[in-house]
Amino acid sequence: MPQQVTRAVARFIVASRHEDVPEPVYREAKRAVLNWLGCSVGAPRHATVTRALDGLAPFFGPPQATVVGRGERVDILHAAMLNGIASHTFDFDDTHLATVIHPAGSVASAIFALSEYQGVIGRDFLHAFVLGVEVECRIGRAVYPSHYDIGWHITGTAGVFGAAAAAGKILGLSEQQLVWALGIAATQSSGLREMFGSMCKPFHVGAAAKNGLAAALLAAQNFTSAEAGIEGSRGFANVLSAERDYRAITEGWGSGWELLDNTYKPFACGIVIHPTIDGCIQLRNEHRLALEEIEKIELGVHPLVLELTGKTDPRVGLEGKFSVSHCAAVAVIDGAAGEAQFADARIKDPAVIALRQRVRAEVDKTIDEDAAAIAITLVDGTVVKKRVEHCIGSLAHPMSDTDLEAKFRGLCEPILDADHIEMLINACWQLDQADRLDHLASLTAPRRSGESVHVGAGPIRPAAQLGSRT
Amino acid sequence: MPQQVTRAVARFIVASRHEDVPEPVYREAKRAVLNWLGCSVGAPRHATVTRALDGLAPFFGPPQATVVGRGERVDILHAAMLNGIASHTFDFDDTHLATVIHPAGSVASAIFALSEYQGVIGRDFLHAFVLGVEVECRIGRAVYPSHYDIGWHITGTAGVFGAAAAAGKILGLSEQQLVWALGIAATQSSGLREMFGSMCKPFHVGAAAKNGLAAALLAAQNFTSAEAGIEGSRGFANVLSAERDYRAITEGWGSGWELLDNTYKPFACGIVIHPTIDGCIQLRNEHRLALEEIEKIELGVHPLVLELTGKTDPRVGLEGKFSVSHCAAVAVIDGAAGEAQFADARIKDPAVIALRQRVRAEVDKTIDEDAAAIAITLVDGTVVKKRVEHCIGSLAHPMSDTDLEAKFRGLCEPILDADHIEMLINACWQLDQADRLDHLASLTAPRRSGESVHVGAGPIRPAAQLGSRT
Repeated sequence: MPQQVTRAVARFIVASRHEDVPEPVYREAKRAVLNWLGCSVGAPRHATVTRALDGLAPFFGPPQATVVGRGERVDILHAAMLNGIASHTFDFDDTHLATVIHPAGSVASAIFALSEYQGVIGRDFLHAFVLGVEVECRIGRAVYPSHYDIGWHITGTAGVFGAAAAAGKILGLSEQQLVWALGIAATQSSGLREMFGSMCKPFHVGAAAKNGLAAALLAAQNFTSAEAGIEGSRGFANVLSAERDYRAITEGWGSGWELLDNTYKPFACGIVIHPTIDGCIQLRNEHRLALEEIEKIELGVHPLVLELTGKTDPRVGLEGKFSVSHCAAVAVIDGAAGEAQFADARIKDPAVIALRQRVRAEVDKTIDEDAAAIAITLVDGTVVKKRVEHCIGSLAHPMSDTDLEAKFRGLCEPILDADHIEMLINACWQLDQADRLDHLASLTAPRRSGESVHVGAGPIRPAAQLGSRT
Repeated sequence: MPQQVTRAVARFIVASRHEDVPEPVYREAKRAVLNWLGCSVGAPRHATVTRALDGLAPFFGPPQATVVGRGERVDILHAAMLNGIASHTFDFDDTHLATVIHPAGSVASAIFALSEYQGVIGRDFLHAFVLGVEVECRIGRAVYPSHYDIGWHITGTAGVFGAAAAAGKILGLSEQQLVWALGIAATQSSGLREMFGSMCKPFHVGAAAKNGLAAALLAAQNFTSAEAGIEGSRGFANVLSAERDYRAITEGWGSGWELLDNTYKPFACGIVIHPTIDGCIQLRNEHRLALEEIEKIELGVHPLVLELTGKTDPRVGLEGKFSVSHCAAVAVIDGAAGEAQFADARIKDPAVIALRQRVRAEVDKTIDEDAAAIAITLVDGTVVKKRVEHCIGSLAHPMSDTDLEAKFRGLCEPILDADHIEMLINACWQLDQADRLDHLASLTAPRRSGESVHVGAGPIRPAAQLGSRT
């Protein structure tokens, strides 16, 4: 039985000083925050966010923190939840490849709201963000892949620890209070992979942000938990995983940083499909392929691709993100895989469906997770091929700052005007200089006032029901 | 793979009419609500509740529902959480013996708040309560004991389904919306047994109440989940349990009712210790035992007693509830095991400690869960013995309505005056006649205004830290 894993984490958080974190880690933190903010600002008119907002609006507390991309200010717990949901709605957020955790969502959503409310300076926000990601990814490493294989959505289950750790750092919790915060987080760790393809997948990030933040707020009042929430015999790692290696949590603090293993998606879907999309777009552009020339598309992929994204007949946009066939088809037709390629209308487009049905994906055990082999057969019998070894967005081939800015602009353009977008980009790069986060938050409000929220409105009546799974 | 377990539950909830539930089930529902209300009204000055309240108060929404036993009105989500926490704080709530679920807490806390807000009549409240308990206990039966053995606190993990089902019935959700509500509940199912003995144990009930209620509110806006939240390959039953029997969920709806298997605790601690306490009190009273006469106490108990309550050296009141040694000692000294016997001061009393150290408990495999064998050796060598076959509060020997009223009075006396207590008792027995639940809720407010809550107060500062585990 390991000794005091939870306490070791608490001790590390308390001991960490701003200057203990190397500059390249802070630089990566700013890249991660820019990417998180773009995903969050871009999504709030999506039904996933608006339905969550409509369901919870009558219960919002005082205006303390901003729902980014909308402008409403609500209590920090609901701001954390709604920004967390938004950040993962497009499945376009960051990925810690070693654990498949999307690390920024829960951590940034929790402490962005808390920092706006508490008047925290940018430097302290970034420091807490780095620590939250460190805690969440180390806990994830300790139980991955067994935990994920059982069926847990690790972004939610580990994310709640990251949010609690980061919020606890900002609140200045003591070591004992952090032990409790991590314990309160542990006992709220949840999120099932069964939910992939439904609105509950992004909900997991919002719930992790909110519950982790609440864990820190409760611990600040000496609300107690068990002492060994992570490693206890009936604690997180034993109950939610078949295997565990606590050294991933306890060893080498400060000698390496999980954030340096973070990656950003160039395409708005699950990362396992990215090599396929990358290769399809390259082939399309190199050979100037037109839809009517194409007979079939054959893919050799890593086993996870079919396990996670094997849907051959997606019916709505969210399902399209879990269909490697759909992604290959739109990549060849449109040369892109942004949100537009996952709109419901695009999923139902007859030309897309026709090509999608001519995509065949097979597992190739020689292929790594960031690789794919694509062969496109033309109607004249020609076959064009591409083997992607390290796709764009991988650790070996990361998105540049310029790539990230371009992605940010694409996400924000439907919501904000160009001036505000550039001000936000600059504010993110200068986050370590910021006096407080209010200004950054207020810049995310759309110029048009948009839909207003009715706080404390009358009795709840269910919405007219839509068709199944819509 | 079973077909549509989640949908079968949704269909049952939608189809159920008030008159489908037999009168004895409604009668038991009123007994369960009376017991829930007494536990909830009695606890709100306990540190478990006040620290949760202090931590969350700055984020409360509009005054929609009552925190029972306190008088503040807060948004319904926080009311559900705080009343749920209060209901389990004394570990004095009801028990569904077949699953060890404490069923009323999450369900009643969720829909008491919702009903006050929505102006629901007592009859509909009781109907939804019956359905919520039915759903939660059936889901619990399907995975018990494997799920519990892994380390899940089934009151929280199953309770969230009950709260969602009951709230969904009150909101008039469609079958599809209930499928989603149950799915959103499934993906929030959490609560670790590692937390037993800390404030997180009652927190699980509050979280289940709040999260189940939120699941129904989100589903009312067509916020989607997976279709098979319960039975899917990566759904609740497969991920959170090693074994499962879906027939417990799908078969025999309406032919029997889980609520008829509910029991109420005469003593303020885990039910597995009750036979020991019952027998010790009987021996004390029959033989007029005085503390100075007693040499030692020997107990023969069911295996679960030592597994769950084997603490021999409790340091605080909450831990005393998990110490069969402490319970036997106070039962013999005080002839009681109410909240007073679990006050911190009583745990630290030298006379109690001295007797506690002379209690020996051993597993006796011939003994059932509601039985115990007690032998008390006196200093003069005399040995007095008692074998309890069915302790008070068991299904075979249930508490009468009069017993429940007496328990209710004992719980409420520190908070309310006698007139209000009697009015509350009468209101519970007449709940099926009530126009709305506002009146009942307002009767729970203490006459003295007590501590007020500062909604939207300034920045959060951690409380001064107390000693470990206090």
